[in-house]
Amino acid sequence: MPVLKDLSIVDYLAKTASGEPVPGGGSSAALSAALAAALVEMVANLTIGRKGFEAVDAEMRAVAEKAAGLRAKLTADIDRDSDAYTQVLTAFQMPKTTEAEKADRSRAVQSAFKQAAIVPLGVARDAVAIMDLGRTVVLKGNPNAASDGAAGVLAARMAARAAVYNVRINLGSIGDEAFASELRREAARLEAEAEAKEREALSLLTI
Amino acid sequence: MPVLKDLSIVDYLAKTASGEPVPGGGSSAALSAALAAALVEMVANLTIGRKGFEAVDAEMRAVAEKAAGLRAKLTADIDRDSDAYTQVLTAFQMPKTTEAEKADRSRAVQSAFKQAAIVPLGVARDAVAIMDLGRTVVLKGNPNAASDGAAGVLAARMAARAAVYNVRINLGSIGDEAFASELRREAARLEAEAEAKEREALSLLTI
Repeated sequence: MPVLKDLSIVDYLAKTASGEPVPGGGSSAALSAALAAALVEMVANLTIGRKGFEAVDAEMRAVAEKAAGLRAKLTADIDRDSDAYTQVLTAFQMPKTTEAEKADRSRAVQSAFKQAAIVPLGVARDAVAIMDLGRTVVLKGNPNAASDGAAGVLAARMAARAAVYNVRINLGSIGDEAFASELRREAARLEAEAEAKEREALSLLTI
Repeated sequence: MPVLKDLSIVDYLAKTASGEPVPGGGSSAALSAALAAALVEMVANLTIGRKGFEAVDAEMRAVAEKAAGLRAKLTADIDRDSDAYTQVLTAFQMPKTTEAEKADRSRAVQSAFKQAAIVPLGVARDAVAIMDLGRTVVLKGNPNAASDGAAGVLAARMAARAAVYNVRINLGSIGDEAFASELRREAARLEAEAEAKEREALSLLTI
């Protein structure tokens, strides 16, 4: 599998559109979260060192640094998500003739599904963290870039919610009920936080 | 300016994050709308020709074809949006010593701002159209790809709303009140439609 993050935008979109199982919604959530981080970073960078914004300069530098770290992590998650789902498909192809083979296969499938739920849960968590940075740049950043900050908040909310749907669809195949209910609970919490944080950040806009 | 759609994802994100004015929220909206089209197309392609989905085969083929057309158009809009805003910056750099120069510059700035509002309005319109296709794949497409369809709907809603903020921020600099109020009205309508269509499409999900 080629490294998705190094594909051109045109090629990445064509690969998504094709009838292959990956990349899909999970990698798209990671891409949208990385885009959100980049937009927040942009607003911070358009504020740092500007006349009239001296009082928030240190805060904007901190936001830019955090956003850059999240952008790098989430860009890698574009591939991590598709790789995790590919492992599910690989596990399904394991032999299942003998009882021992069936047990091995079942363990591998379950372990792969767990990873395929854990990766988007991490994306949702990071997307919600970006929304806090987004609120800061919308409230205190360069108002000429207000629509860029708004786009960042909107992209982070898309990422959090799309990632949560990916967590849920994979949990549906997991037999470990304790694991599934813990992830389901955190997913629901992140979904609700994404909605609340978007509403609050967008309410600060004057455009 | 390099063609944005041919940049790698990593490079596009780095360019967005930088303190340059483009690409920003407008190009991100077009990218998110193109991603939405790709995800909807993916679900249609994972439904076409499958056993059990014969009754919706023709409808899914039509969805895939429409989504592919919108994907191509919106991918080009990633560059069109940034080019339109670059024209605004170029117009601002025109000489303004004489009265004639001032008048020429003002006309060029106004014309560039109009284009910079028209491009994202078109993106918002296309994003809302993708939401209708998204509803169809969520309702009738392969349920194994339900989270991909949901991601498509969420990405389209992000695109519509981010594009609308871009329309509005540029309308703030336009003197032609008739033009501005017409676009403002359509932007508000598209924003409300995006919310309503998202709510309805996501309510059809069983994950």
